[in-house]
Amino acid sequence: MNTAIPPRDDARIAAALERLSLRFGPRLQAGKAVREQHGHTTTYIPNQAPDGVFYPESLEEVQEAVRLCAEFRVPIIPFGTGSSLEGHVNAPAGGISFDMSRMKRVLAVNQEDLDCTVEAGLTREELNQYLRDTGLFFPIDPGANASLGGMAATRASGTNAVRYGTMRENVLSLTAVLADGRAIKTARRARKSSAGYDLTRLLVGSEGTLGVITSLTVKLYGIPPAISGGLCPFPSVEAACNAVIMTIQMGILVARIELVNTLGMRAINAYSKRDYPEGPCLFVEFHGTEAGVREQAEMFGEIAGEFSGGPFVWATAAEERQKLWKARHDFYWAGFVLRPGCKALSTDVCVPISRLAQCIVETEADIAESGLIAPIVGHVGDGNFHVSVLMDIDDPTEIKRAEAFVARLNARALAMDGTCTGEHGIGQGKMRYLEQEHGEGVDVMRTIKQALDPLGILNPGKILALSGT
Amino acid sequence: MNTAIPPRDDARIAAALERLSLRFGPRLQAGKAVREQHGHTTTYIPNQAPDGVFYPESLEEVQEAVRLCAEFRVPIIPFGTGSSLEGHVNAPAGGISFDMSRMKRVLAVNQEDLDCTVEAGLTREELNQYLRDTGLFFPIDPGANASLGGMAATRASGTNAVRYGTMRENVLSLTAVLADGRAIKTARRARKSSAGYDLTRLLVGSEGTLGVITSLTVKLYGIPPAISGGLCPFPSVEAACNAVIMTIQMGILVARIELVNTLGMRAINAYSKRDYPEGPCLFVEFHGTEAGVREQAEMFGEIAGEFSGGPFVWATAAEERQKLWKARHDFYWAGFVLRPGCKALSTDVCVPISRLAQCIVETEADIAESGLIAPIVGHVGDGNFHVSVLMDIDDPTEIKRAEAFVARLNARALAMDGTCTGEHGIGQGKMRYLEQEHGEGVDVMRTIKQALDPLGILNPGKILALSGT
Repeated sequence: MNTAIPPRDDARIAAALERLSLRFGPRLQAGKAVREQHGHTTTYIPNQAPDGVFYPESLEEVQEAVRLCAEFRVPIIPFGTGSSLEGHVNAPAGGISFDMSRMKRVLAVNQEDLDCTVEAGLTREELNQYLRDTGLFFPIDPGANASLGGMAATRASGTNAVRYGTMRENVLSLTAVLADGRAIKTARRARKSSAGYDLTRLLVGSEGTLGVITSLTVKLYGIPPAISGGLCPFPSVEAACNAVIMTIQMGILVARIELVNTLGMRAINAYSKRDYPEGPCLFVEFHGTEAGVREQAEMFGEIAGEFSGGPFVWATAAEERQKLWKARHDFYWAGFVLRPGCKALSTDVCVPISRLAQCIVETEADIAESGLIAPIVGHVGDGNFHVSVLMDIDDPTEIKRAEAFVARLNARALAMDGTCTGEHGIGQGKMRYLEQEHGEGVDVMRTIKQALDPLGILNPGKILALSGT
Repeated sequence: MNTAIPPRDDARIAAALERLSLRFGPRLQAGKAVREQHGHTTTYIPNQAPDGVFYPESLEEVQEAVRLCAEFRVPIIPFGTGSSLEGHVNAPAGGISFDMSRMKRVLAVNQEDLDCTVEAGLTREELNQYLRDTGLFFPIDPGANASLGGMAATRASGTNAVRYGTMRENVLSLTAVLADGRAIKTARRARKSSAGYDLTRLLVGSEGTLGVITSLTVKLYGIPPAISGGLCPFPSVEAACNAVIMTIQMGILVARIELVNTLGMRAINAYSKRDYPEGPCLFVEFHGTEAGVREQAEMFGEIAGEFSGGPFVWATAAEERQKLWKARHDFYWAGFVLRPGCKALSTDVCVPISRLAQCIVETEADIAESGLIAPIVGHVGDGNFHVSVLMDIDDPTEIKRAEAFVARLNARALAMDGTCTGEHGIGQGKMRYLEQEHGEGVDVMRTIKQALDPLGILNPGKILALSGT
């Protein structure tokens, strides 16, 4: 199998840029700074800037520009906010970044149906801001204030997934422009359907390689009448994980249950100016009625006690809770205080929950043996956790050590019947692990990709290595 | 577009039968009675029997037989229990029925992870029987005691979907044999993953047209410590629907909320020998802790009262509840007491919940105007409802009238941003509505089908009409 990325073609790219510029004027930008902002910037993966950045303002403009790129066989790289972690927005074969930030209209809020339809460029925080007077909210919260289109494309999740699901469960329908410029709407607004192949779920997680998502309908939820939560320290990561496992097994409807290990807590305290306990902690939250929340929290408290957890730091007031979760969400940035001037290799795996404690304990030991500085944080209710390896990226041996660690981490997760990524996606960074995880399934993915994008122009060099192109 | 089903080829079919018979002996059956049992038998759709029935006993045997069928370009029709309602198991171009009933081993129960892996032929009742000592259960319950493989293939759901989701949300992974005999396992056991295209969701709902599902891993749930529920009559269908809408909007975690209209209640009373109120009723059930269930039920009671519902008939004892739900599950058979000797046209649609009352009210009026005998029952928490049209299938004008009614019902649901099927699937019966619902999306489905099954041997004539074959 030829795993090479298709070679860039300067003449075709130049011709496409000229046509796009003629048609869209200043909404096609080709300055170096703008282009580099649209390559990968968040982790240690090298920046590969696109040749131009196009800012569409409508579905029809996306279609027109896709057709033009198809005519010149020029790569298209859909761009939300650029917060992805595995190099999804890089342009290894050059091409045009489609920056969706001018498409952020709220097209419909159907309060009675608990759903809304928005353009792909709207961010999750903007959506929740828009919804603030409705009593509804959109729960999916990856660390960054990502765009809804980008979140769908990477099958994102976050701290609430244990209760509300991921983008897989929360996108009801989407509109996408395919490689030939056709637009499809994948479903109606019905909550369930058995009508044909599940094109919604095919596009969710396809990372821009099958279509450019232009709008989507997502589920909303009523803001629960009661929310409570807090922070619970544990004597060991193992004890914390075992408390999580029992919580899930007992069917406690926890809305969030997040692990931060000792090094992670130290980073949070330093970066966010907190004085939380500096040992393994669970951040938990319960959503429901007053009685329901109280009951769930009590049950969790008993479980925590069984594993020598506590004392619990409760945060019932909204402001206290926001402070707690802000610290948690800033974890990615907090990591850098552990090693200023460094870049992060941010990786995630997800395992069946019964294997979680063992997987994290072995990973902590591996980090120690490898001499890496790498805090761990996890959406542990799903069996999902992240390691943020802080590296001097000018030191090739350090990169090598970190990459070897990631390879071992993935092998460990796969051996436990887990996945090489719970929510970050494959992008450029995890293609080799996708092969290890899916085997022949990757050939099936490749067949689908080649059938739907025969020219290979949609985000080439991501998820799949294509043969023969 | 050529919508013809590929013509049957007697010589190739005969050759394949001979080879299969040589290889598998009596596990290849070709008697008329067996063949007819493996065509469609449940509704008015005419029976189109396969040419032979193969009873595989392992993944490898399925692979071997698929390769043999591919060699002779002979259709393969996967068969679970034959309880599908839209002609999924018919053999319009002849071919071999793959009866999965000898593949019903439980391969693993991972109690700690709340999942299990089973072979495709195991039925949902057999699975729950197997799990009876574990404290866990599998909630998805279509009317019939269907096989898990068949339920995955049709993206089935049932009365619990409002709380526990459908097969879309509950299949973690599956193993399927593709048209060329390759086997793929679509995912690991992690609860979430962003690793590549969602092949699990692509196979779920593909109705045997993309692969033969041989085993699957499904989510399990702890049997809730408290269950309560009952029956609540309403003065009108509209009032009942409005109570449902408010229940969902208020975020009450109802586990089941089922509507049966007046005619449906009459049929249930007659068939199941009950004396339930003969007006529109909601069957409801709450799962949770003692306190949680009590609170939810009280909230529901208040809502029902607001819409003049009641008095509530509670069924808290397990035996009472089973009696209640047995009556509900037997609804399909109960219908026939309304017109003995008839066949049913059983159809379903699903709409956004805000449109549910209007859709059902208009449908009841349509039934009355059409002079049809057709009770309605619905998984109304999802916006999903069924109409069972009882017909004399020897009267072509009656069939015509019923089909015209179904066309109007689907147009009504689609106009309300709903789907032509919430859980029955497309099969043979709803191909025209799939086109109306998905437009260009159907071409995308066709592209995928042709890429993965270029010979068109997997369940031809279902879901999609293929061009040029």
